[in-house]
Amino acid sequence: MTPRIRTHIGLLGLTEAALLSAVSWEGQVSRRFLVERTGFSKSKVVAAIANLLEAGLVRESGPSESTGGRRSEQLTLHPDLGVLLAVDLGATSLDVAVLSLDMTPLASHHEAADVRHGPGPVMTRVKAIMKTLLARLALLPDDVLAVGMGVPGPVAFDSGLLVNPPIMPGWEGFSIRDDLAAILGAPVFVDNDVNVLALGELWAGRRFAENFLVVKVGTGIGCGIVCGGRIYRGADGAAGDVGHICVDPLGPVCHCGNVGCVEAMAAGPAIAKEARAAAESGESAVLAELLKSVGSLTPVEVARASREGDMVATAIIQRSGVLLGRMLASLVNFFNPSHIVLTGGISLMGPLWLASIRQSVYGRSLALSTRHIELRLSRIPDRGGLVGAGVLALNSTLEAAKARSL
Amino acid sequence: MTPRIRTHIGLLGLTEAALLSAVSWEGQVSRRFLVERTGFSKSKVVAAIANLLEAGLVRESGPSESTGGRRSEQLTLHPDLGVLLAVDLGATSLDVAVLSLDMTPLASHHEAADVRHGPGPVMTRVKAIMKTLLARLALLPDDVLAVGMGVPGPVAFDSGLLVNPPIMPGWEGFSIRDDLAAILGAPVFVDNDVNVLALGELWAGRRFAENFLVVKVGTGIGCGIVCGGRIYRGADGAAGDVGHICVDPLGPVCHCGNVGCVEAMAAGPAIAKEARAAAESGESAVLAELLKSVGSLTPVEVARASREGDMVATAIIQRSGVLLGRMLASLVNFFNPSHIVLTGGISLMGPLWLASIRQSVYGRSLALSTRHIELRLSRIPDRGGLVGAGVLALNSTLEAAKARSL
Repeated sequence: MTPRIRTHIGLLGLTEAALLSAVSWEGQVSRRFLVERTGFSKSKVVAAIANLLEAGLVRESGPSESTGGRRSEQLTLHPDLGVLLAVDLGATSLDVAVLSLDMTPLASHHEAADVRHGPGPVMTRVKAIMKTLLARLALLPDDVLAVGMGVPGPVAFDSGLLVNPPIMPGWEGFSIRDDLAAILGAPVFVDNDVNVLALGELWAGRRFAENFLVVKVGTGIGCGIVCGGRIYRGADGAAGDVGHICVDPLGPVCHCGNVGCVEAMAAGPAIAKEARAAAESGESAVLAELLKSVGSLTPVEVARASREGDMVATAIIQRSGVLLGRMLASLVNFFNPSHIVLTGGISLMGPLWLASIRQSVYGRSLALSTRHIELRLSRIPDRGGLVGAGVLALNSTLEAAKARSL
Repeated sequence: MTPRIRTHIGLLGLTEAALLSAVSWEGQVSRRFLVERTGFSKSKVVAAIANLLEAGLVRESGPSESTGGRRSEQLTLHPDLGVLLAVDLGATSLDVAVLSLDMTPLASHHEAADVRHGPGPVMTRVKAIMKTLLARLALLPDDVLAVGMGVPGPVAFDSGLLVNPPIMPGWEGFSIRDDLAAILGAPVFVDNDVNVLALGELWAGRRFAENFLVVKVGTGIGCGIVCGGRIYRGADGAAGDVGHICVDPLGPVCHCGNVGCVEAMAAGPAIAKEARAAAESGESAVLAELLKSVGSLTPVEVARASREGDMVATAIIQRSGVLLGRMLASLVNFFNPSHIVLTGGISLMGPLWLASIRQSVYGRSLALSTRHIELRLSRIPDRGGLVGAGVLALNSTLEAAKARSL
């Protein structure tokens, strides 16, 4: 991106910023569609698009396929706007990618990481990988429009600082934004991993819904909330921390100190623990054999045992689904989402798990709330984090421009 | 309101509509404050206010008290805008009021009602009372700027129709909006009672928070949700139906068919039932005596017995608080509100009930979510419904003007 273009983004009018945002979400779009989507008048849209073309922020990409009537010129973001840097930091993994403005990966890198080592070593790797990827594409730091990063802990979004991150000791108060800004001129946006996943789902479904939840089930359980088409973060940035909702007042003690937390009873470690107990007690011969051959039991083996007809494994999966469904039923009654999208490692356990969740949610939620609800698995389970980080970067940049132009 | 003013509201620009809305929330406000509050530039505010003054929608009410420096002219809504009609329909009561634009009641009427009689008889009374109140103030239907009404059932807000209202058989698909529009030229807005209560709290606290909950505990339990400073209604208008969240998988069967619903265990009827059982079994002499002298036991008598030192009554109140707190803890973990405001008949039970709720919420929610949370009783327990209906009317009228000007 040229400095001229960066200046133009900084000086966008309200209408221009809103239209640029709409073009980015649609990918390719006609003026007529923009009128319908934004509610602006036709003359306002035509004038603002002329400004955006003049400033080099959008370009015309030729007429659309005919659907009868006059074919209209299609608009896309101008490639000179640059590329996006996306970072998906997990508890034990690090993914970095360079994305084009339509979230296509141009270059990417994956490696193991340990967030417990603190920001020093982790961020050193992030920056080194960024440099390598940009160099591989013959791009300069100035070609980066914005950076988006998801982290496995609560983030105060406005300051970009981590707040009390339970699995990220040493990161408290560390500014990822300042750290990355030191090597890049581009704006940096940081958010919690489930919020980033929710943005990825919004993108994959082209803003398919206004009010929905993305629930990640892995070692822990977290929830990204989309409210009115935007990520909802709560009063202290702690919204969506659903792993410690109680689903059984007589349940086991969780590491948080409370009893019956859904995370302690239905997430990965609980499933693995139950499977090992069933294997070691001789209750399930299939699981015992898998434990012997694989060396350990994870939800993957439990799902395999269930597919092979093992009743104990099937019961373990159903129990996880029922307990998760009980928690989700509370959210459905309260929030009345149109969709719940399930993602994370455990969501790969298969259709039985999903069916148990559905049954539990429908059984416990009110008719009006479940009349139209869609409860499904993510369609981008492997790349939700990187796509979401790219969307965070692009979206936040355009939102910031909109806010400045008020 | 003159037809000229109604036309002006219909033709407001985006900036003008936003400023008019800000003036209405603040009551009395300087141009400088509007610049800070809305983020618009000073010149934009000055120009738009000139338009609003010219159109007769606001007026200058003299300089503010000096706080040092030049005293600035204060702006208020122009009284010629008219009055608001507010209707608060409960399961067994009907309140109607004429309010000024700052929500001061100019005339009001209360009577018993039974929503189960259906829209015919109830709406006939609503319209008759409206006519009487307007006549008493020597006002005409044309003086009414807008009408707001709260009803004890789920409302599809855009259409204004009731959807599957469980305690309002016969109202399904009935249009309160069309019915009232037949006698008034003003726009009519209808919403669920807890959403209306939430608007009342927003007003009473002068938009004190962006993200908070208003929980009404009476015969049932409902929740109004404010998200980003606006009422959140969910995908089907069913959000906030928290009465059937499960707080005990081994609890009693609720009228909804599920077990352990918080409404079945912690609301008014459950408290009354437990009190009667304690009185009849001889477990509590105080409650037995109250049952004999009063003839029935409601939460009011239970609170009285507790104040008189009765341990059984105290235990009943604490149990209600603990179970409610368990449900609220789930909402706090999920939604991370800055405030929870309790209202409804049961909220008058006193400090012991509130203390039990607080203890339960703090015990079960995560530290980050409860760090700043304020859990308190409503400061307008008696008039939240009418004030809220007035705010619904004024607010929705200005919002509609804003939407039209895009």
